[in-house]
Amino acid sequence: MPDAVLPAAILSAAPAAAADALSRRHRAPAAPPPAWNDVLATMLAHRSVRHFLPAPLPEGMLELLVAAAQSASTSSNLQLWSVVAVQERARKARLAQLAGQQGFIEQAPLLLVWLADLHRIDTLATARGPAPEGTQYLEAFIVGVVDAALAAQNALTAAESVGLGGVYVGAMRNHPEHVAAELGLPPHVFAVFGMAIGWPDTAAGSDVKPRLPHEVVLHREQYRAAPDAAAIAGYEATLRGFQREQGMREIDWTAQCAARVQDVAALRGRERMRAALAAMGFALR
Amino acid sequence: MPDAVLPAAILSAAPAAAADALSRRHRAPAAPPPAWNDVLATMLAHRSVRHFLPAPLPEGMLELLVAAAQSASTSSNLQLWSVVAVQERARKARLAQLAGQQGFIEQAPLLLVWLADLHRIDTLATARGPAPEGTQYLEAFIVGVVDAALAAQNALTAAESVGLGGVYVGAMRNHPEHVAAELGLPPHVFAVFGMAIGWPDTAAGSDVKPRLPHEVVLHREQYRAAPDAAAIAGYEATLRGFQREQGMREIDWTAQCAARVQDVAALRGRERMRAALAAMGFALR
Repeated sequence: MPDAVLPAAILSAAPAAAADALSRRHRAPAAPPPAWNDVLATMLAHRSVRHFLPAPLPEGMLELLVAAAQSASTSSNLQLWSVVAVQERARKARLAQLAGQQGFIEQAPLLLVWLADLHRIDTLATARGPAPEGTQYLEAFIVGVVDAALAAQNALTAAESVGLGGVYVGAMRNHPEHVAAELGLPPHVFAVFGMAIGWPDTAAGSDVKPRLPHEVVLHREQYRAAPDAAAIAGYEATLRGFQREQGMREIDWTAQCAARVQDVAALRGRERMRAALAAMGFALR
Repeated sequence: MPDAVLPAAILSAAPAAAADALSRRHRAPAAPPPAWNDVLATMLAHRSVRHFLPAPLPEGMLELLVAAAQSASTSSNLQLWSVVAVQERARKARLAQLAGQQGFIEQAPLLLVWLADLHRIDTLATARGPAPEGTQYLEAFIVGVVDAALAAQNALTAAESVGLGGVYVGAMRNHPEHVAAELGLPPHVFAVFGMAIGWPDTAAGSDVKPRLPHEVVLHREQYRAAPDAAAIAGYEATLRGFQREQGMREIDWTAQCAARVQDVAALRGRERMRAALAAMGFALR
């Protein structure tokens, strides 16, 4: 490729830290990557944080995280997402109750609830003409969910880049209508997930969680239908080593996966998602 | 907050570049943020790139982007996503045809197609016991879509951090079954969106696109139901200024939004999404 298009960062030899960060993510030797910088280092060092110090966020930090979130792509610039920042202790406690009694939600100085928001576009479109039909379709719901997710991921990476930590809270979907009532959501707005943010209590810190070997998730030109048995077995061994080190319950990854999807009971109420969304105004045609 | 938890980056005064980057995103004066670094600068500078130089990606870059993607959070570590990297010209051309004849898809050296992948967990769970029921629910589909989106956003930010550019391709959902056939997807795998990646042709570069004022998307404690009319009007004026500068067609943002959702025709075939997903094995109970 022409040198002209290469920024300086990519031309300099990637430091040993790069290969280290990559090998920590997969617990396997990694070749030095073709580029390295603070953005990659921040992402590769990601770990979910569920223990927070009782310190507040600095003035302006919430707005900075939202600016990062808004800088993410959004389908056709429709911006079909919103976020509710919850900082009042009592409200965090009530939301924690709705989200599997997870204590860290109350402990974190900031709970962000990320919303797929079709209400705003409904309102704006209706002010100009007839009520829109398009937002009644599953497609619009998918766009709202994806928009919210892209924004949220930017916010979390931004938070991590300044030394904050956080964790996604999927359990915010356990009781969608109750969460909507607590947050005063109008119809056609869905809390996709929460995100607890704060200063990590490093005393309770965990290591970077190993992920599947990249050849399991990365397909070239076409999908390889069968997951590679040896790669999966290797990952199970890696993850058992991680569980042992972190003092977690040791269990095969595939057993964990199977347990999460084996039957309706494993969904912990989320089997009601379609009915809940219908009650909240999503026709999902 | 205790000094001990503050990394050096946050203690140093944020440079003027920070306020500049923030004000470019909103085309409004911005106060200096409480922290600034290369991660925030990369995100705030995001713009979608649709014109690429004919240079290939360096060896190992695809794997580096995937490592960044894998470092994103994933619900319960289930990793319900995969990605297909398409580099063969003929396949890119066929996918471009399926995705609204967008020429940049063929031009980009790399097309990533991000997948919500319930097939892998179905296969792994079935190897251990009965076929899982849980993946038949809308909840599992949402998890797959969110997992894919978080991974994709990391990959795009990673690409931008090394000087690459890219753009999401939502039109990959125009003909879901045809895309699935082209990529050899098994049942229960859905191409959520594509992403074209390459070296930006800076001669055709556009400026950072202004987003809604943060007070429109950021709610505190509870959702404010009515979008602020003055804030929306201000945004329309800002965006018209941007359109004029970039030589784009001038149109009110709310008119654009309304046009995208007003009726079934505006969905350009994506009103079939639910039927298409059913045909691809998603019961979405």
